[in-house]
Amino acid sequence: MSSIPLKHFKKGSPKPDLPEDGVWRLFTMAFCPFVQRVRLVLDAKQIAYHKIFIDLIEKPEWYKEYSPLGKVPALQLTNLKDQPTLIESLVIAQFLDEQYPEPKLFPTDPLQNAQDKILIERFAPVVSALYPVLTCNPNAPQDALQNFEKALNVFEQELISRGTPYFGGEKIGIVDYMIWPWFERIPSLKYTTEQKYELDAKRFGQLLKWRNLVAQDEAVKQSAQDPQVHAKFQLSKLEGKPNYDIAFNN
Amino acid sequence: MSSIPLKHFKKGSPKPDLPEDGVWRLFTMAFCPFVQRVRLVLDAKQIAYHKIFIDLIEKPEWYKEYSPLGKVPALQLTNLKDQPTLIESLVIAQFLDEQYPEPKLFPTDPLQNAQDKILIERFAPVVSALYPVLTCNPNAPQDALQNFEKALNVFEQELISRGTPYFGGEKIGIVDYMIWPWFERIPSLKYTTEQKYELDAKRFGQLLKWRNLVAQDEAVKQSAQDPQVHAKFQLSKLEGKPNYDIAFNN
Repeated sequence: MSSIPLKHFKKGSPKPDLPEDGVWRLFTMAFCPFVQRVRLVLDAKQIAYHKIFIDLIEKPEWYKEYSPLGKVPALQLTNLKDQPTLIESLVIAQFLDEQYPEPKLFPTDPLQNAQDKILIERFAPVVSALYPVLTCNPNAPQDALQNFEKALNVFEQELISRGTPYFGGEKIGIVDYMIWPWFERIPSLKYTTEQKYELDAKRFGQLLKWRNLVAQDEAVKQSAQDPQVHAKFQLSKLEGKPNYDIAFNN
Repeated sequence: MSSIPLKHFKKGSPKPDLPEDGVWRLFTMAFCPFVQRVRLVLDAKQIAYHKIFIDLIEKPEWYKEYSPLGKVPALQLTNLKDQPTLIESLVIAQFLDEQYPEPKLFPTDPLQNAQDKILIERFAPVVSALYPVLTCNPNAPQDALQNFEKALNVFEQELISRGTPYFGGEKIGIVDYMIWPWFERIPSLKYTTEQKYELDAKRFGQLLKWRNLVAQDEAVKQSAQDPQVHAKFQLSKLEGKPNYDIAFNN
């Protein structure tokens, strides 16, 4: 939908001409799970947006104009006065849900809304525990995978206790989208770990059923990348040359 | 308002009889700035609550029943089905603001609401930079105070740019309350640092004016503790014997 070059802008890259068409701008990195959270919400609500890809290791000098902390995701609301830019995936998600209530993703009940946000916060230990494994860190502790499974177990139990196909209930909701990006990446461990790691079908039975279901969601399909591509990206990072643009060659 | 003993319960402390009167229960530690965030919102909205004090180093065994991660603040909604407990200060604050809209603390405009939540997130670097100084950490880097001042400068500039007495505008708002606990603690540095540190009146002129104003707020007064008490608590921690109960002896 745009003429912005399909590459990750880096230090020294001249600033591209960004279309002044009032369409929002999402500053992204093709493999960032936190950006994917925002894409899932934008896509679920069928909101149009331009994507501007940023090399997070060597950031282009002009990126500070858009995101003073240099963070992605950053969503620029080009149709509003002063074209403000929002950061923080969960803050952006909640803003989008208020502005575009169809489909409603956050619970309308304030208690359930608070409990879902707490559950999303409780995913942070899973993210931290998964990180050294996912990034093929050679110094990852021996028990890194066990730590990850222990953290993940909270979500297996929560899904059993909710007794619904999605964390959001009978329909996909905000918890599902906010945790999904990491579940898309877990199958890459089959290609990057010595033991060809996969989630245990017994221990994580509900989560695996949930994963198959969520993978069919239209918004999820729009930003989906193959586990082998995730694996290739992680391996390129390990070699000290993160190949961001590999996202476009598949 | 309650007969719960005024002391920090610790490992081995039998579980106290908690009144079953439908009044909410706030699990707290007397010097925790994140708990104080929640107290400020509860007090601003004149919501009654019991306080149950928890020793965070040696937690009582029964505390897990209330807060599975062992965190404070935890707010138990005793009048609701299953008496759920909420954690995470900002999530609790937003829940309270939805349930008790007087006075309204979060902006009603979704964009301003998102921007204020981002500003609160941006206070995290101030908290991190202040932590080693506030806790009198003898291994704090030489330039710890400069790092803190650099982080704080974002808020001085933001207040100037907003051009209002409070971050919330003409009235105190959610940003003011969420960052206040650390401003209450900064004057303790006069007692704990060699150079008797105080905020520079020129560099932080707006923030100091703001601090004097916020200190007059009724909710702020309700949870206020003297800088010298904060200093005594930090020094007791430094000696390896955090004296939580010092809060009650003044």
